[in-house]
Amino acid sequence: MAHIELGVDEEIYPGINGPLKYRPETAKPLEELAEVLLRDPHPTLSPGERELIAGYVSGLNECNFCASSHSAFAAAQLDGGMPLVEQVRADLETAPVSEKLRALLRIAGAVQADGRKVTSHLVAAARAEGATDLEIHDTVLIAAAFCMYNRYVDGLATLAPTDPALYAEAAKRLVKHGYMR
Amino acid sequence: MAHIELGVDEEIYPGINGPLKYRPETAKPLEELAEVLLRDPHPTLSPGERELIAGYVSGLNECNFCASSHSAFAAAQLDGGMPLVEQVRADLETAPVSEKLRALLRIAGAVQADGRKVTSHLVAAARAEGATDLEIHDTVLIAAAFCMYNRYVDGLATLAPTDPALYAEAAKRLVKHGYMR
Repeated sequence: MAHIELGVDEEIYPGINGPLKYRPETAKPLEELAEVLLRDPHPTLSPGERELIAGYVSGLNECNFCASSHSAFAAAQLDGGMPLVEQVRADLETAPVSEKLRALLRIAGAVQADGRKVTSHLVAAARAEGATDLEIHDTVLIAAAFCMYNRYVDGLATLAPTDPALYAEAAKRLVKHGYMR
Repeated sequence: MAHIELGVDEEIYPGINGPLKYRPETAKPLEELAEVLLRDPHPTLSPGERELIAGYVSGLNECNFCASSHSAFAAAQLDGGMPLVEQVRADLETAPVSEKLRALLRIAGAVQADGRKVTSHLVAAARAEGATDLEIHDTVLIAAAFCMYNRYVDGLATLAPTDPALYAEAAKRLVKHGYMR
């Protein structure tokens, strides 16, 4: 049970959905940030790749609701599907992703630990694989944003369903309707 | 020098200001979130108290730009001024704040480390001092949001001026104009 009375049935509004319903004033910019970062048109990073960064960071933060959600959202939009997402989360170094995406995910992992862990070396390595300034910027901000969303969800002790089918269903809705419902 | 070419003079746009200029699409929800959380009318938490939570968390994350900024913003809006802010950041347990605010700041400190560290015990202790659900919610989200802003600022290695007068000047502008300039 969540730490505060969210005023919703948590089985119907699990995870971040309860707090978003509870406080619509903060929900608006929180949803808009996710939409812009993860779904708006981007010159080089697909929605699936951006969701993969979100799912990877949420996994590092061990936030079950967010990790399950964004892994499902990534899987629904990447050719490799859930097996690819699981490989990235299990072992980034051997997962079959491009070297550019691997370098960006290493930056995301550094941000998750502490912003100061993003070294010039990590940035230069990403650039050497073709990463642009915008990709580096967005990777840092996606990773930072999920350090917020993850703490919001877990700091209020919201419900995280365990049935993968629920997250797969949520992914279908997300791909169709986006974050700003 | 920042990790990416922000397209601004960092002496004029230090810290988060460069990345906000660089990517206006993400700046919009980031600024709106700060405005709603820290400055919009609130039934019980003053802007100064909310800025204190932001400055306290930024200090725990050792983000010099954000800690200096939000400490100055808190000091400009709290009766105790900078001495009070410095006491809270140096030793929360002995600082002369209300027991309710101390309990909320303990929750913020837990969020900074890991959302799962917000225990039922910490929440019950805040409630026993009169904290409301809204105060607990907003404390968790402010703390979580600064785990994002701090990582955004430090993950891009932006400039953090050391002159306290610059932050005091920024505080005057903030109190007058807010976050959505």
